[in-house]
Amino acid sequence: MSTALNRLGALEAAHKLQRRELTAVQLVRACFARIEQRENTIHAWTALQKQAALEHAEALDQGALRGLLHGLPIGVKDLFDTVDLPTRYGSAIYERHQPGLDAAAVALCRHAGAVVIGKTVTTEFATYQAGPTRNPRNAAYTPGGSSSGSAAAVADDMVPFALGSQTAGSIIRPASYCGIVGYKPTFGAISRAGVKSLAESLDTVGGFARSVPDVALFASVLMRDPRLLNLAYDAKPRIGMYRSLQWRHAQAETKEAFAQAAATLSRAGAHVEEVPLPPEHCLLVQLHADIMAFESSQALAYERLEHAAQLSPKIQAILEAGARICAEEHIANLARAAESRARVDGWFDKYDVLLAPAASGEAPFADLGTGDPQFSRAWTLFGLPCLSLPFATGPQGLPVGLQLIGKRHDDHRTLAIAAWVHERLLAAREPDIGASGMWPRG
Amino acid sequence: MSTALNRLGALEAAHKLQRRELTAVQLVRACFARIEQRENTIHAWTALQKQAALEHAEALDQGALRGLLHGLPIGVKDLFDTVDLPTRYGSAIYERHQPGLDAAAVALCRHAGAVVIGKTVTTEFATYQAGPTRNPRNAAYTPGGSSSGSAAAVADDMVPFALGSQTAGSIIRPASYCGIVGYKPTFGAISRAGVKSLAESLDTVGGFARSVPDVALFASVLMRDPRLLNLAYDAKPRIGMYRSLQWRHAQAETKEAFAQAAATLSRAGAHVEEVPLPPEHCLLVQLHADIMAFESSQALAYERLEHAAQLSPKIQAILEAGARICAEEHIANLARAAESRARVDGWFDKYDVLLAPAASGEAPFADLGTGDPQFSRAWTLFGLPCLSLPFATGPQGLPVGLQLIGKRHDDHRTLAIAAWVHERLLAAREPDIGASGMWPRG
Repeated sequence: MSTALNRLGALEAAHKLQRRELTAVQLVRACFARIEQRENTIHAWTALQKQAALEHAEALDQGALRGLLHGLPIGVKDLFDTVDLPTRYGSAIYERHQPGLDAAAVALCRHAGAVVIGKTVTTEFATYQAGPTRNPRNAAYTPGGSSSGSAAAVADDMVPFALGSQTAGSIIRPASYCGIVGYKPTFGAISRAGVKSLAESLDTVGGFARSVPDVALFASVLMRDPRLLNLAYDAKPRIGMYRSLQWRHAQAETKEAFAQAAATLSRAGAHVEEVPLPPEHCLLVQLHADIMAFESSQALAYERLEHAAQLSPKIQAILEAGARICAEEHIANLARAAESRARVDGWFDKYDVLLAPAASGEAPFADLGTGDPQFSRAWTLFGLPCLSLPFATGPQGLPVGLQLIGKRHDDHRTLAIAAWVHERLLAAREPDIGASGMWPRG
Repeated sequence: MSTALNRLGALEAAHKLQRRELTAVQLVRACFARIEQRENTIHAWTALQKQAALEHAEALDQGALRGLLHGLPIGVKDLFDTVDLPTRYGSAIYERHQPGLDAAAVALCRHAGAVVIGKTVTTEFATYQAGPTRNPRNAAYTPGGSSSGSAAAVADDMVPFALGSQTAGSIIRPASYCGIVGYKPTFGAISRAGVKSLAESLDTVGGFARSVPDVALFASVLMRDPRLLNLAYDAKPRIGMYRSLQWRHAQAETKEAFAQAAATLSRAGAHVEEVPLPPEHCLLVQLHADIMAFESSQALAYERLEHAAQLSPKIQAILEAGARICAEEHIANLARAAESRARVDGWFDKYDVLLAPAASGEAPFADLGTGDPQFSRAWTLFGLPCLSLPFATGPQGLPVGLQLIGKRHDDHRTLAIAAWVHERLLAAREPDIGASGMWPRG
């Protein structure tokens, strides 16, 4: 029995745990069994605490119900401080770093009853130098980054949920590559306290699960928003199809998924129309990159100035580019971003959500890095809530997600519409992928 | 000679250090001599490192010029992580906490040649539970908070500059109470990486010095903005006098200072007019408090949920009030703040800067707490650059500052106008205070 428990979604497992039909110990054991079977191939974790997790689970089983996440095992991106596990931020500089506290998001999950079973691989300071993690769908490929381990662990059924963060495309891209749901909330909706800072006007905490309601369960705790527990949606959403000015970089599978989604959702009764793309949007990718470079060269000042020799050439290049930007230029960049943001905010008078590519296509080979965040940069810059919804497959048999973008601070409706959209996309896709929202296991 | 060196302003000391007319060792020694004389009365510091600071100073004296802050001793609010000094955030929970890195602001100062001589007292997590610090002008009174030690250390000539932070009124109020210049930049202008998070949409890094050009010198390094090194301003500023809807809480000395400033600046050629106060501004104090309470109850989730017994009743009350606010209400509060913010941003078409009270009046007795931030809450909520400019005196002979508020991301012009304004206010004040911008020493 316990071999299948690890495949339970967060919400289903939570219901069983709340009814005491399932024990936290059973669930944690099942997750560790999966990890022991697969970790040598996937390398999702930087640290695991089996003994402590089992003891925590046992205490939960013997005590009163703690909260909405009672007994649910989770993974935590190693960019989040944890009081009981080393936290390396993906960098050799912090090889022996042990924080003295839990990040706020970790504390909120634990307080609601979640069991932290370990820390997941992040790229170096959540940028582009890859860690060892491989894509669970095919280990020759990258899981994407920077939340590489969190995405892979959830996709491989090692945990039902994992915390992640996004500054460029660090949630949406790995979710798309790994075939799971990734959720980047509205900027600021989840506290970043205790999460290593990369770019303050962009860094956003979010997470991964295998369905929209599963990710919403965690978000309800993290955002203190009980509305997220009810994703009922009975209208026909108005959907703007945002092809993006990076369309020429989209591979065939992404273009097909985009077209297929438009057709499927239109048939399902949604009002679907193409959004005319403002010409200035061709500048957003660079604008985001410049703002991120300036801010990360400031936020990582200590590492850049005192430990440069331990930084990878990839992050050095970003930080050096950022250090050449002065305040005057950065302020002009922020003003340009604010203008574009205000214009796009206005679109939500006309559309309930936007759909856009989540990534160029399937995951690249692991040797080629963690992929390109270009399809996420604009939405992170705008601070809008985004999800990656898995439903299509590329030529290598790897997952292809679709990005759904909602209105600022309208995460409740965004998640509800995402659930509506995802249900319809899954119902319409090729039968070989299975109806559960999950890919065949590797 | 060395007894007077500690009274040098940052800019003057920097010039002497750059010309090697003064050694860093001389300056650091002079600061420590002042500290050894006065610390038993003032209690500005949580940790000092005399030996390490002198060794650092000696290395600077023997090496090449490091940067704009070469050889300048500074204090760092104990809310900022430091790799070589314990960091307690004003809380018993972190009694033995030693961070593994420097906050970005600290790293930037050190890289430009500053010598960190110690950590300064903060109230508990930068809220209202006072530390032991006393007002250097009269030790029976509070220096204000939360940046209590930084304000007191600079006011008492122990250091020419100290780092601080503001979430409600934690820079402006202590600067006003201690009779020095406090500067809270535009929200986001200085990296908060490595600074303990209290309320993410409000927390702002800034600092204290004894003149506007002195504080601008540090800001130019921290914000990477070389324009701040030249504060020449030869226009006649358009000044909006913002009396504030908390006017009834202003004491006589604050009202007098406000009126005196308007008259002085008008005589000096500024275009001075009273700003009509929007009625909804009566809600801003509470709106700020609610947003701060929600966000701090999230940011301090670990401390609130795992170490409640070690929190003061004062902060517990804030965090509990915050924990009763749900996401839906918080989002509505943010929307209301954004509306007010947009309206006030529009005022800067008409005014170059606003002037407003910096605090209700003189510092209260130390037994009564650290004073009320009500005159700063709106400006922190709006994220506008603010300075407190010392120039008047209250009935107890204690300083009274004036708050100058500038346009968002227009810190350069705000500082330049602040220098213009401050020069004229100092020139016009009663002769017994002295022409240097400094109060008689205690």
